[in-house]
Amino acid sequence: MSVPWEQFCEQLIEEPILGFRFDASRMPVQRADLEALKGPLGAAFAQMKALEAGEIANPDEKRRVGHYWLRAPERAPEPALTEAITETRERIKAFAGQIHAGKIAPPGANAPARFTQLLLVGIGGSALGPQLVSDALGGPQDRMQVHFIDNTDPDGIDRTLGGLRDSLAETLVLVISKSGGTKETRNGILEVEHAFEQQNLPFAAQTVAITGEGSALYKQAKDQGFLEIFPMWDWVGGRTSVTSAVGLLPAALQGIDIDALLEGARRMDELTRLEDPARNPAARMALLWHLAGGGQGERDMVILPYKDRLLLMGRYLQQLIMESIGKEKNLAGETVHQGLVVYGNKGSTDQHAYVQQLREGADNFFVTFVEVLRDRAGHSIEVEPRVTSGDFLLGFLLGTREALSDAGRGSMTITIAETNALSLGALIALFERTVGFYASLVGINAYHQPGVEAGKKAAGQVLELQGRILALFAEAGAEALTVNEIASRLEAPDRADLIFHLVEHLSANGRLHTIRADQVAESRYSPV
Amino acid sequence: MSVPWEQFCEQLIEEPILGFRFDASRMPVQRADLEALKGPLGAAFAQMKALEAGEIANPDEKRRVGHYWLRAPERAPEPALTEAITETRERIKAFAGQIHAGKIAPPGANAPARFTQLLLVGIGGSALGPQLVSDALGGPQDRMQVHFIDNTDPDGIDRTLGGLRDSLAETLVLVISKSGGTKETRNGILEVEHAFEQQNLPFAAQTVAITGEGSALYKQAKDQGFLEIFPMWDWVGGRTSVTSAVGLLPAALQGIDIDALLEGARRMDELTRLEDPARNPAARMALLWHLAGGGQGERDMVILPYKDRLLLMGRYLQQLIMESIGKEKNLAGETVHQGLVVYGNKGSTDQHAYVQQLREGADNFFVTFVEVLRDRAGHSIEVEPRVTSGDFLLGFLLGTREALSDAGRGSMTITIAETNALSLGALIALFERTVGFYASLVGINAYHQPGVEAGKKAAGQVLELQGRILALFAEAGAEALTVNEIASRLEAPDRADLIFHLVEHLSANGRLHTIRADQVAESRYSPV
Repeated sequence: MSVPWEQFCEQLIEEPILGFRFDASRMPVQRADLEALKGPLGAAFAQMKALEAGEIANPDEKRRVGHYWLRAPERAPEPALTEAITETRERIKAFAGQIHAGKIAPPGANAPARFTQLLLVGIGGSALGPQLVSDALGGPQDRMQVHFIDNTDPDGIDRTLGGLRDSLAETLVLVISKSGGTKETRNGILEVEHAFEQQNLPFAAQTVAITGEGSALYKQAKDQGFLEIFPMWDWVGGRTSVTSAVGLLPAALQGIDIDALLEGARRMDELTRLEDPARNPAARMALLWHLAGGGQGERDMVILPYKDRLLLMGRYLQQLIMESIGKEKNLAGETVHQGLVVYGNKGSTDQHAYVQQLREGADNFFVTFVEVLRDRAGHSIEVEPRVTSGDFLLGFLLGTREALSDAGRGSMTITIAETNALSLGALIALFERTVGFYASLVGINAYHQPGVEAGKKAAGQVLELQGRILALFAEAGAEALTVNEIASRLEAPDRADLIFHLVEHLSANGRLHTIRADQVAESRYSPV
Repeated sequence: MSVPWEQFCEQLIEEPILGFRFDASRMPVQRADLEALKGPLGAAFAQMKALEAGEIANPDEKRRVGHYWLRAPERAPEPALTEAITETRERIKAFAGQIHAGKIAPPGANAPARFTQLLLVGIGGSALGPQLVSDALGGPQDRMQVHFIDNTDPDGIDRTLGGLRDSLAETLVLVISKSGGTKETRNGILEVEHAFEQQNLPFAAQTVAITGEGSALYKQAKDQGFLEIFPMWDWVGGRTSVTSAVGLLPAALQGIDIDALLEGARRMDELTRLEDPARNPAARMALLWHLAGGGQGERDMVILPYKDRLLLMGRYLQQLIMESIGKEKNLAGETVHQGLVVYGNKGSTDQHAYVQQLREGADNFFVTFVEVLRDRAGHSIEVEPRVTSGDFLLGFLLGTREALSDAGRGSMTITIAETNALSLGALIALFERTVGFYASLVGINAYHQPGVEAGKKAAGQVLELQGRILALFAEAGAEALTVNEIASRLEAPDRADLIFHLVEHLSANGRLHTIRADQVAESRYSPV
């Protein structure tokens, strides 16, 4: 597909200071379809304005949605909020400065002079943003090495802690949980605390919390005397918290320019407030998502940044978009089963994985390419006469775009001048705003996650069942029982398959004994 | 949804030596639908048998498909192949042993005594399998640290090489490319060679190649005197090459038990040769994929291993499945646009990302859970009375499964006893065979990738256009030109938007000069 130059120039959206461009010329869109969404887009602009002014934009949870204020504190609806944002930002920079200077150092006479390692414990919105920022912007300027525990996998925790075994004394722990009630994070804290105890290191004195005031974690931090507590406000959602302390504190500790990150987001916020989809890339992108998927997410979004550092964008956007858009009910309470699938890692690597299917398979996606103009910090060798590795990287992006276009598959291309804090902040803000507009277009609440509770509740029931199994076997004289017999004793005949998974797991970890029979149904389990 | 115990037991597929189970009780499937696929499945068994016997199973490329022989060399259709497989496996083990023992060591009088770092240069099938194996099985037993260059991103290459700057003298380079013509890998080799030259280190003497005999890379390795060459056969496809030298050599060098990996794959191959879908998990899974997506991939496969080490399974399976199944034409030459989207990272982490959408959003997926019974090598603390972190991990898996089931969303659960070489080999072989069966059910060639060529060809045209732009500006007295003027001089008026991307990239990397105007169309470019 060839795009006339005049049309390309007319459609291109640019922000020169950010070094940002948005090129949607390869999306097959009819002007009439765009016109038809003019009304809903007007409503989306109005809703966004109300949201930014402090209206309750998350009605289910009766919360305001204030992540845009984090980049422009003066826009917060109350002076107290403005002050809290500004003060927190300053506290973060001061704290990171003191850590780097060794003014806040590991306690004890024989302790190391400085914290060199940062261990972040968090999950979901408390990990995906920090991981993206850390990986995208890490480099020779790093003041601390950052490690993550983002799950309740014992082996995964051991692997991370194993890598820190010899440097735990110089490790600063950063625990992030808004409510303090997230079990994965609570478990991670206990596991890390245990590792500190085993080395006779003072856990609390090396630990910082980011949490909501009054949360369980807040109380723990106060009681145990954590080194510091930074706030997490109820008007900042987890998946849009990367420009709050959640993203800023680990970034500042790593040595990343958080002012530039915020400035990039602030500039993109300004651009995406323009009430004209011809100049506003978030509005344009929301319209394109809508048109591509019929307002029902019928086409997946494949995100393909051609830059190794941006590999985690796919995982970050999976959360930001899918947790925001994947909803059963719309704001009117009607069942809509909305969603927008996101996947993708990086180009050109993914060209050798699933681009075969994009080119030839089902027409069920559109691609969002991310192009980075600057190849590297230093000089490039020529890999062919007057051709560099970076020329190939761009060649593969543009070539794949052409090949997809020729096959009738749409794509948009986001360009940034280089991967730095400014442009990353801009990308984050761009997608945040697009999600907000798109949610308005399809009439849903983008800022709650009611479906997550069902899994947590069911998990609680599973653990309760396990407790009853263990209690059964703890009874004096408990004999060897089959799954069926356990189910019957527990009066849970319809839970036999769950019981099977549970007793097999307990047995594999030395907490029950299995007398294995040829038939699963006849295997018996007994106390160890 | 509750599953009767008898039905669960009847459906469960087990392989006790592998510690493997397959539980499809949560897939909503009608017996009649399964019956209807009996005929096609019989044909799939027959085709698989012919494939394993050495028939040309990849007709377009006129190639045999022999990855199953790699685990059972005696099954290869010719003694010469059996011998080549066996001999290569022995050579790999011997080579790794000599590297570990320092008998093959960096050359030179002042060189380090031993290779401690392994730098793998490859992309697609030459990287995804090795990355999965390395991450899933790496640990305290590692004999070498493994690093990857899997793209032609200059900054990404610099980042990997930067981490090796101080240990390049003890780095063994492993270059993997079947044809030797993959540009990303060719560029990676040149970049690495340049880094060696800058430190006056002997690149060839520290480099091993895995490549097809007679390939461009083979010739280079011979000419330059690489340390060693291992074979890549034309009857092993890139995405099924992990049990060939491609996966085995880096794994052996890392210190992974490759015999166990092969044994796991061999045992799974035996299980998945059974011509009975009630006992054959690959046949069962292929049927379920077919029924879930109407034989057209109408439902995505979400892969959710609850184990940090298995994070890369999603990326590995994206390639294995999507590159195999995503095809325009079926074997009869009819246009079918087949495909099966795969995404997913790890649980329970992903529960805090997109599981909201799975639970509430569109009914356009099924989940494949991977359960690992053994939590960790050592003892677990209790995070609540008689509850461990690992209990929570399993609780979240089973709870999410229940919550999805209650919402009418299907899932299957693969269980392995622990994450080790044996079980990973089994998982790999399971999905390889499933892809083969599924391809037969939908009548496509799973073993070629014709769509990849289009992107490469288009990329070549882009680079050719760049060459013409640079030549234009290299002409004596070349003045500053707009994009339109460049397009017109090159007689490529319909390529203006491509030219724009190219000159902006050249300019960002100091190879052209930009005189920026307010309007893109009026910006001018000139030689530096």
